[in-house]
Parts: sequence; structure tokens; C-alpha cells
Amino acid sequence: MKDTTILLESVRKLLRRGATVHLLNMLLKVRPADLAEAFKSLDEQEKSAAFRLLAERAVPQAAELLGHIHPAHRPDVLRGMGPEELAPVLQRLPSDDVAEILSICPQEDRDRVLSLMQKEASEEIQELLEYEEDTAGRIMTTRFLALPEATSVQEAIAAVQKAQEAEMVFYLYVVDEQGSLKGVLSLRRLLSVPPSTALRDIMTTDVISARPETDQEEVARIVSQYDLLAVPVVDADHVLIGIVTIDDVVDVMREEATEDIYKQAGTSDEERLTKSTLKAARLRLPWLFAAFGGGLLGALVIRAYTPWISRAATLACFIPVVLGMGGNIGTQAATIMARGLATGRISLRLVGEVIFKEIRIALLLGSMYGTLLGIAAVFLVGLRPAEGLAVGLSLWMSMAMAAVLGAVLPMILKTIHIDPAVATSPFVTTAVDLLGLLAFFGVAGPRLAGP
Amino acid sequence: MKDTTILLESVRKLLRRGATVHLLNMLLKVRPADLAEAFKSLDEQEKSAAFRLLAERAVPQAAELLGHIHPAHRPDVLRGMGPEELAPVLQRLPSDDVAEILSICPQEDRDRVLSLMQKEASEEIQELLEYEEDTAGRIMTTRFLALPEATSVQEAIAAVQKAQEAEMVFYLYVVDEQGSLKGVLSLRRLLSVPPSTALRDIMTTDVISARPETDQEEVARIVSQYDLLAVPVVDADHVLIGIVTIDDVVDVMREEATEDIYKQAGTSDEERLTKSTLKAARLRLPWLFAAFGGGLLGALVIRAYTPWISRAATLACFIPVVLGMGGNIGTQAATIMARGLATGRISLRLVGEVIFKEIRIALLLGSMYGTLLGIAAVFLVGLRPAEGLAVGLSLWMSMAMAAVLGAVLPMILKTIHIDPAVATSPFVTTAVDLLGLLAFFGVAGPRLAGP
Repeated sequence: MKDTTILLESVRKLLRRGATVHLLNMLLKVRPADLAEAFKSLDEQEKSAAFRLLAERAVPQAAELLGHIHPAHRPDVLRGMGPEELAPVLQRLPSDDVAEILSICPQEDRDRVLSLMQKEASEEIQELLEYEEDTAGRIMTTRFLALPEATSVQEAIAAVQKAQEAEMVFYLYVVDEQGSLKGVLSLRRLLSVPPSTALRDIMTTDVISARPETDQEEVARIVSQYDLLAVPVVDADHVLIGIVTIDDVVDVMREEATEDIYKQAGTSDEERLTKSTLKAARLRLPWLFAAFGGGLLGALVIRAYTPWISRAATLACFIPVVLGMGGNIGTQAATIMARGLATGRISLRLVGEVIFKEIRIALLLGSMYGTLLGIAAVFLVGLRPAEGLAVGLSLWMSMAMAAVLGAVLPMILKTIHIDPAVATSPFVTTAVDLLGLLAFFGVAGPRLAGP
Repeated sequence: MKDTTILLESVRKLLRRGATVHLLNMLLKVRPADLAEAFKSLDEQEKSAAFRLLAERAVPQAAELLGHIHPAHRPDVLRGMGPEELAPVLQRLPSDDVAEILSICPQEDRDRVLSLMQKEASEEIQELLEYEEDTAGRIMTTRFLALPEATSVQEAIAAVQKAQEAEMVFYLYVVDEQGSLKGVLSLRRLLSVPPSTALRDIMTTDVISARPETDQEEVARIVSQYDLLAVPVVDADHVLIGIVTIDDVVDVMREEATEDIYKQAGTSDEERLTKSTLKAARLRLPWLFAAFGGGLLGALVIRAYTPWISRAATLACFIPVVLGMGGNIGTQAATIMARGLATGRISLRLVGEVIFKEIRIALLLGSMYGTLLGIAAVFLVGLRPAEGLAVGLSLWMSMAMAAVLGAVLPMILKTIHIDPAVATSPFVTTAVDLLGLLAFFGVAGPRLAGP
């Protein structure tokens, strides 16, 4: 942490002074991963100026740095660079990173960059770009090592030595003449058998694979479930077309967790990528509109009871606490259910059990806090005992209903193919609010109408 | 998914019939990772019966299955097994997994299991158990491959072939006579140099390492930042004592994301591990108590205004919507800030910028929804224009204050070493509620007192 700060300050100082030779020497001396960390804290102009210097004078280092920079920061880093400057840098990046960068460029720039790159690399990238975002096809690399079944171990070792381009070689894939995936073996296995052995005799034929259209979250689940370092991606004819490596999976997991957390709060992951207040506001608009619409409905509910409120205004004091407690326990139930469904910890068979447990918890906590609220209403605010009882009961009901809604909703959303993570969003807390109001006026209302 | 269901139903049927021979054959035929997936959906009794059968008849397979079962399900799977049955199975698991399992056993069972295991393994595990939970020391494996600097490549390859016990060999670590970490090289590098080369001449000396007390979340960050497959763990004298492999890091990332998500809802990750309603309720109690206490305070605030409410009860209709909208935008700001701090995307330098952006968004959305609410209050509920203006203004104020609180709080929590993820918990939504009430009565209150 401290080193990053020192590095950051030095880069800044040298940029301000225009000391390009010193700055370049410094940039070349630091680990690309550390430099990427420091880059996060530079402002837009500093990012692009420092990167441009590196891209002009030291293309390989620039490419390595760019590979380590978080995708969200790449547009800033590359700002103002034309296709002619971009192409040589991108040429050196893994094809999945290039596809990611080009996917947010204007079509015109994209085509120009691709035409400037080597034909083979450019074709690879165009293929990746044809797969949808967030699929295995988009994050796979096409630089893998695949050998025929008859290859000897000795030949395979020679192939590994030559394959400088392949990404992270830990598995060797074995294919037939059509390129169809037949087996896999680890680099280590290669070392523990006689050199003349054919790969077909030592390979594992039980290979876990993904399809290019497989969702990246599912790929992450496969890697985690089977403890793999890479997953081969095959097409409809079982032809090996790429591999997804674990370093990309680690990034996917981080992204997906962030996405879920954002959804729970009623906004989108896209907000991270925008600096525009207007765009961020637009992303939240629909969620808040649900809250607003629900709030207005709530206002109409309360309005129906205004004659009663005028007569017993003290009872109205308890509206916020009844709604707030319901909202909290409903959110807890929804969170536990949605996260369990996302990680696969709550299987379909367990759903009923978890819902039932949530309801028990809500009834228990509702009884406790309901009693407390009733007592507080009588002794702190001075309600009559019958009114205190009504307020306490309405809290209990509000919590019970919120727990049922919170626990059941993620399951319903999953069934109709909506991400359960949205179950704790404003959309739902507002539904819980409305239920709470109905509980309040349903139970406490008749008391309000009393003498 | 479908295969798991078929597998599950078969296991169940055979268990019911007591067809142990058939069941055993089936358990031995299926991939351990797939079996672990199906185990999730068995009930407690089925889990322990099926596992016990495997542990009695086929220890290696039982160990492999246990390694794939999620830690949360392990206590159920192992229920009722005595130290004598446990020891041979645990003997075959990586030391970090064993430490994890024993850490939740009663002390007596733990000692007995350790005394039944081989001395070397048992000492390793006891060492791991001395490190605190959630640290690198707890999740590292002590089965790594370390060789002296003078070793030749040929000797190193022979060592790799023999090291059947070492976990996931992709890096070779090079140490001096004191065991101090000097360098690292990849298995692949080993293949691309002449056999007589000494490791010291080809190793990378710039090694990223962790300390045993390093937080596991920090280890995950290191792995992700530097794209590593394993991180060496060194003690105060830089002696290599273990390695954390990327498969464990993947598990850590999943766990930490779940933990953060649970904290945001005001409960704890421990809730996953308990089946007891009472214990789950106890975990949520403090959070809900904060909401309850805040709600009571809110009730007292409203009570101070009851004479006014009696006179203008329609204004009270808008309390829930003003509080709800503030709560939502405050949660959004807190979520974005807390997640950004957790992933390191929001660096200290960017904090001010993000807070400022959140405030701009809240002012923009507040103006919009404030205007809408004012109009709705006049035309839908029939308030006078001046009252509508007051209600709209109070919504605007409530949203602005909530955004400031939501954006600033995670930073304050981080400074005083509390996990910023709690910033969206009930504790905070309640504080936002109180602010909202003050905004409402501060702005709309004077209107309530009007003629």
C-alpha cells in the first residue's frame, strides 16, 4: 500500500515536470502489476499521458501493463490513442483481452485496428467478438496447446518448449484428426512416464468441458466444483476451440459478486463504468420509480385512514418502526435465499426448508420485538394497553409477512428466469412497505377508530 | 443439473432399500465432484449414512469426496463418526482441509484424531490450527516442493516426478540452507533449459509472498493482481513454510463475497452454518435492535408533532415515501462505496470524487422525484400548493442527506477498522430513516402548523 503511494507520487511529479526520460525509466523498472495498481489512482489525463509514453517507447511493457489494468479503467488509459498506435500494443495481448477492449470501441476504430494487426490474430479476435458478452466464448483464449493422440511424450515435451505463445500451459489437450477433444493430461504427468509413451495411453478421457455459449458464471462454477486450472471450450462437434484459464475465472467471480451486490441495491454494474452523473441516475431511475410508485400507493392507503389519524395521532408515530422492521427482516430473508441460490448452496430440495426456517425466525423475532414495542408504546408514548397491544401485533404481522415475501420471492424470480439478486432491491423493499402498512392499519386501524 | 437429480434419486432409493453393495458400486463410479454436488441435496441422515458406507469400505474415495464437499456441509456428513473412523479419512486430505474440519470439533475429539494420525501429518495440522481463522496460515498447504539453489534442472525434474504428495505443482520454490525463500520458477521453464543448468541461474528472484498472518482476502487480492497460481507463505525470517494455491483462493473469494452480502443485510455468514432458528435469530438480534431503537426514537420525533398531525393528517401520508426514497438512495451510495473499497477499485484518492458523484446523483434524482411528489400531493391527495412544495422539498432533502451519509459512512468505518460492508445494514438504514424524519418535519413541519 505504502509503496503504491510513493510510486504514484513519483509518476505524478515526473509527469508534471515533463521529465519523460526519467519517467520512462521508472515505468520500465516497476512490476507491471504494481504499476497497474498505481494507475488506478491517476486522473484521466495522467493515465493516458503515462500510458502513451510507454506505448510509444516500449510496446511490450505497455502491453503487459494494459493486461494488468482493470477493464473498467482501460477506456481512460487508452483515451486519445488512434488505431495506428493501439494496434501494435493490442497485438501482444491475449485475444480475450483484445476482444474486451475492442467491444467498447466505435465500429470504425475496431475495423481499422483489426486491419492493422496480423491476419491470424485479427481473425481470432473477430471470432471471439461474435460470441455474446459474459459467455465462455468471450473470455476464452485460442492460444492453447493441442496435440494428436499418437504424439509421444518426448515430442509433447518438445512442443511445450516451443509453445511460447500459449497461455499458462498446465494441461495438454489431446485431439483427433478433426480437432475433436479426446483427452487431457497435466504437464506433470508428462514428466513421470517414459519418453516413448503415446499421449493416448496416459491421457484422462473423462474431460470436463464447456460450450462457447456457456454463461461465464457457470464456467466459474465448473472450475470451482472440479478444482480445475483451465476448462476446454468445444463447439457442437466437440472440436476444441479454446480454453478458459483460472486467472480469468478469478476475475469473473469478482465481477459477478459485484454485479449481484449492485443489483441488490437497485442499480447496475454499469454504473462503475460511467463517470456521468446523468447516466448513473438513469440506471437507478426504474428502481427508484418502483419505490416512488409504491410510496405513493402507501400515501393513498394512509390517506384513507386520515379521519382516524386525526383522532389518534399518537398511533401514527409507529408507522415508520413497523415498516422499517418488516423491511429489515424481509431483506435478510431475501438475501439469504438469493445468495444461496446463486452459489448453489441452497438446492431446489432445500428451498422449502429454508423458507420455513425464515418464517420461524420472523415469528420468533416478531413476538419479541412486538412485545417490546407494545410495552414501549404504553409506557413511553402513553398509549392505552389495548392500543399498545394492537401496535405490537401489527409489528409481528408485518415482520411475518415480510419474511414470507422475502423468502419466497427469489425462488419465484428464478423460476421466471430473473436474477434472484434483485429480490432485495427497492422494488421489493417497497412491496414490503405496502404489506407493512396493510398490517398496521388492518390490526391497529380498528383501534384508531375507537373512542 | 439433470444428471445430479438422477444421481440423487438413485442414491436415495438404494439407501432406503439398504442395498449397500449396489450403493457402494454406484458411489465409486461417479466423479467425486459430482457426488459432492448431489450430497448437497441429501438430508442429514442420508448424508451421514452414505458417507459412512464409503468411509468404511473405500477410504481413498471417501477422502476425495470429503475434499469436494463444501465446508458448510461437512459437519452433517461427518455426524456420528468417531475419531477412530475419522482419522484414516482425514489422513488423506490436504492439511488445510483437515485443520478446517478439526477446528469445529470438540477439543477432546480433535486431540484423539490427531493422536491417531501419522506424526508428521498431525504436527503439520497442529501448526495450522495455531494460526487465526481467515488467515493465509490457515488455508496454506505445507506440502510444497522446495529445492536448494544448487540443484540441477535434471535433479529438479526427478524431484517433481517423486513428489506425489505435493499439491498442484506448477511452481518450484528455491530455498537456501536455512530454508529461506530465494526464488521461484515454473515447471514449464524447467523444460526449456539444458538439464545441467543450476536452478539458481534460471529462477526469478522477484518473488511475491505472503505472511501466515496475512488476511485471506488480501491473499486473494495478491493472486488476482499478479495473476499467480500459488502464493508462497514465509515466516519472519523469510523461511518458506507453506503455499496457498489458487483453488483455495477461488473458495475464499466466494466465501468473502457471501460474507459481505450477508453483512449488508444485517446478519452473519455464521447463519449459513446453523440449522437452529434460535441461533439464527440471535445473530440478527443486534442489527434488528438498532432498527428497533431507531424506530422508537423516530416514534418520539413524530410524537412531538402529533398536535400538528391532528390538524393536517394528510401530510402524514407522505412519511413512508420520504423515508423509503432516502433509504433506497442511501443504500445505493453505501453499497457502491463499500464494494469499491472491498475490491480496491475505489482507492483513497478517488473517495472524494465518488462521494461527490453520489451527492450529484442524489440532488438530481431528488429534484426529479421531489417535483413529482409535490405534484402528486396536490393533484392526487388534494394538498394546497404550498404544502405540496413542502413535501417535495422534504423528499429532496431526505435523499440528499441519505446520499451523503451512505457515501461517507463506509469510509469512516474503514478508518476505524470496521468492515465497510455493514454500511448498508439495518443499523444504517435506520439512521437514514431518522434523518428523513428530521428532514420531513424540519421542512414540512412548519406547514403542518399552518392554518
